[in-house]
Amino acid sequence: MSDYSFTHDVDVRYRDLDPMGHVNNGVYASYLEQARIAYFEQVLDVPLRDIESVLASLELDFRRPVEMDHDVTVAMRVPEIGESSLPMEYEVRADGAVAATGETVQVAVERETKSSRPIPESWRENIREFEGL
Amino acid sequence: MSDYSFTHDVDVRYRDLDPMGHVNNGVYASYLEQARIAYFEQVLDVPLRDIESVLASLELDFRRPVEMDHDVTVAMRVPEIGESSLPMEYEVRADGAVAATGETVQVAVERETKSSRPIPESWRENIREFEGL
Amino acid sequence: MSDYSFTHDVDVRYRDLDPMGHVNNGVYASYLEQARIAYFEQVLDVPLRDIESVLASLELDFRRPVEMDHDVTVAMRVPEIGESSLPMEYEVRADGAVAATGETVQVAVERETKSSRPIPESWRENIREFEGL
Amino acid sequence: MSDYSFTHDVDVRYRDLDPMGHVNNGVYASYLEQARIAYFEQVLDVPLRDIESVLASLELDFRRPVEMDHDVTVAMRVPEIGESSLPMEYEVRADGAVAATGETVQVAVERETKSSRPIPESWRENIREFEGL
Repeated sequence: MSDYSFTHDVDVRYRDLDPMGHVNNGVYASYLEQARIAYFEQVLDVPLRDIESVLASLELDFRRPVEMDHDVTVAMRVPEIGESSLPMEYEVRADGAVAATGETVQVAVERETKSSRPIPESWRENIREFEGL
Repeated sequence: MSDYSFTHDVDVRYRDLDPMGHVNNGVYASYLEQARIAYFEQVLDVPLRDIESVLASLELDFRRPVEMDHDVTVAMRVPEIGESSLPMEYEVRADGAVAATGETVQVAVERETKSSRPIPESWRENIREFEGL
Repeated sequence: MSDYSFTHDVDVRYRDLDPMGHVNNGVYASYLEQARIAYFEQVLDVPLRDIESVLASLELDFRRPVEMDHDVTVAMRVPEIGESSLPMEYEVRADGAVAATGETVQVAVERETKSSRPIPESWRENIREFEGL
Repeated sequence: MSDYSFTHDVDVRYRDLDPMGHVNNGVYASYLEQARIAYFEQVLDVPLRDIESVLASLELDFRRPVEMDHDVTVAMRVPEIGESSLPMEYEVRADGAVAATGETVQVAVERETKSSRPIPESWRENIREFEGL
């Protein structure tokens, strides 16, 4: 497991499972989303309703299945800060082993027009301090 | 199968299935929801964004499992019209057999206050005509 | 709020929300399911893979919306024990207020044939003791 | 839009929408999955229960939101055939415009051990013929 600055626990639901008894691939996106929202709230100090950004991309590499009785934690970090985009890296850990790795790119947008805007300075400061960038 | 005035086809998704390979119980609520929205649009002539009503209750009786390769149709009717509530009855049919029956009650509400309001007269007329009430 | 013997906390996910920002009606079924599985494991001492039963019916009455930042707890009890069926009653509580009430009926089945069978005596004993029946 | 050999229509469900009224990012994975299963059944002539493969990776680039009233089609192709892996490329089209592009890698596995195995010759032949490889 790599070095991550932030972790968020997720409860696996029976509804997350597929016919093989494994968490379905689409559900991993929701696990990442839960971690991302927690990061926004706790690190950026931005409540969910004020997160003016959109998800631009999502990548997931699946290494081993996640099952119902696993303790799942999503580890997450922001490796750098772009002009208007925030890359984020993730590890989905199940019972302490890496079940999947992921990357997303979040883009800050104007609420009304949805056009991109620079990452707010307050976000930059909070991320730099938290991540040691 | 009983006599229903309205039917709506639903595609079973792999994501709908549980570890036994059956459509999970919570997904039936989404199947009913799809039929209900179609009914609102086609019978009441109300587009989704203008449906000013909330779901007050939901009942489902499960008779047999729905599987991935089943052709699923939700049959639906409005048996009567209340002051501010609309009862709705459903049959979820899989390959022509009844897999579940359901009932919901929808309540018309004010958009802002969410307090109940009488069923609009235009809804009444459209339902009466369609259902032969 | 009524008197319930068992409670189970649920984390609301962003994915649970509908366009109004409320937990979608079908997701409540998953919240009940999580509580039910926890009850089976903790009270009946039956692990998930050995729960040889099926859901026969589901009822939900919705009282107020559940939102993303609510602390959600599902309270649950088994009010009586049938020959081969287990009724279960639920309260979905959001920030301490009742957001929905629910009932399900679970039927014990033979693993192979899926035909109903009597509730196992060990289940009866554990439920009676836990519920004070 | 690019040139794709295979398309599969998907019905947007109300349950797919997030609080902004857009299809949630995790749901795109399910749309791709539906197209992939249809491709396996129609092109490879492999029914779902016999698809002995696992998803190794998933990439999605989001270009514009998908909404409830959009007609959604997933276009898909297999650009090449690996030793034991099948890359797949996708376009999610909403009302004819590209809403997202995606890539997945599927790996053929032994049913019992889940270790990778060569892509079956019958799969290769059917894909080569269908894709013109």
